[in-house]
Amino acid sequence: MIIGRVIGTVWATKKDENLTGAKFLIVRELDLEYNEKSNFVIAVDSVGAGEGEIVLVATGSSARQTNFTKNKPIDAVIMAIVDKLDVPKEE
Amino acid sequence: MIIGRVIGTVWATKKDENLTGAKFLIVRELDLEYNEKSNFVIAVDSVGAGEGEIVLVATGSSARQTNFTKNKPIDAVIMAIVDKLDVPKEE
Amino acid sequence: MIIGRVIGTVWATKKDENLTGAKFLIVRELDLEYNEKSNFVIAVDSVGAGEGEIVLVATGSSARQTNFTKNKPIDAVIMAIVDKLDVPKEE
Amino acid sequence: MIIGRVIGTVWATKKDENLTGAKFLIVRELDLEYNEKSNFVIAVDSVGAGEGEIVLVATGSSARQTNFTKNKPIDAVIMAIVDKLDVPKEE
Amino acid sequence: MIIGRVIGTVWATKKDENLTGAKFLIVRELDLEYNEKSNFVIAVDSVGAGEGEIVLVATGSSARQTNFTKNKPIDAVIMAIVDKLDVPKEE
Repeated sequence: MIIGRVIGTVWATKKDENLTGAKFLIVRELDLEYNEKSNFVIAVDSVGAGEGEIVLVATGSSARQTNFTKNKPIDAVIMAIVDKLDVPKEE
Repeated sequence: MIIGRVIGTVWATKKDENLTGAKFLIVRELDLEYNEKSNFVIAVDSVGAGEGEIVLVATGSSARQTNFTKNKPIDAVIMAIVDKLDVPKEE
Repeated sequence: MIIGRVIGTVWATKKDENLTGAKFLIVRELDLEYNEKSNFVIAVDSVGAGEGEIVLVATGSSARQTNFTKNKPIDAVIMAIVDKLDVPKEE
Repeated sequence: MIIGRVIGTVWATKKDENLTGAKFLIVRELDLEYNEKSNFVIAVDSVGAGEGEIVLVATGSSARQTNFTKNKPIDAVIMAIVDKLDVPKEE
Repeated sequence: MIIGRVIGTVWATKKDENLTGAKFLIVRELDLEYNEKSNFVIAVDSVGAGEGEIVLVATGSSARQTNFTKNKPIDAVIMAIVDKLDVPKEE
């Protein structure tokens, strides 16, 4: 899984019929000190994540293993909201 | 999902028998300010996307989760047309 | 899908029993002006592609969606031969 | 598979209902001399790996092939603990 | 598929119960002149590959399409031993 921060939303009216109700969030990747990296991914929310929250994103076919995303053309899903990264002795 | 802009078409007469009717579009990736990146992907259209439009592309097995792409050798599909990227406070 | 040019063949006598008859081609990736990039992929041919031809390659599980590649340990397949890339106003 | 070292834990209270009990570990990739690389992945543990241990991580749909991870939105799993890398004559 | 050379072995006593008997080999990627690249992958052997041999590696779900790897948490498999790369006119 990837760690990222929700920084925005993609608006898309015209989409695959199975995607009605999908919330496309823009997730910017983070390093272990919560600094933003340059890359980002568009992920569908399945846990009620809001802007500014730090999340875990699962990609590929694993992104379709939630109730909402099943059998849909979705390759990235937010499946957890991060409380804390615990890295005892970061090198 | 990836954000990109449709910039062209791939013509391919000789192809797998399951791909008859597939429209192969060239999608250049975009950053969050709509600037084009150097990388691109060839994706099959499933939502009627036209040249110049900004789209979402799902890749991998998720690209086969639309009516048209099911069970076909296709690893990227345009599954939404983007109206707007909404990034309240872009860092 | 990736765009590439067939530049050679991999000879492999000893292989998984399901791969008898598989033709492993070396495909070098191309940019939109048909210039060769540094990266390449080994893909199984499913459309009769020959050396020098420009092709589309599907990767991952989608590479197993042709009659020949089904249920085989193959992660890249040539599923179309490119006639032309049509990019009206390349930036 | 990727070789990495477990360097920490991700705490996530709010997550997909199927993920109750999942232990999300932070795994930093290693080279063949056990030096840490800059990239890392969040993987679910399936073998009782602890902090500081060197592990193998399987990604993608293969990450769902353990008893615990089956049918869950998980794209990386720790499936082995490494005793030793044996590279007779490293170039 | 990726071309690589087997350069070593990973010893792992504690592993997923389905992985008993799996042989984890370290495969360093090669370019088309058989020069070693910096990246490597850990792959399970399914064809009796030995150290120093040049092999093809299939990744992702395709790595589970051999008799031995089926339904196991394995994302890379050696499915062929390379006799020769035949690149008539390398650019």
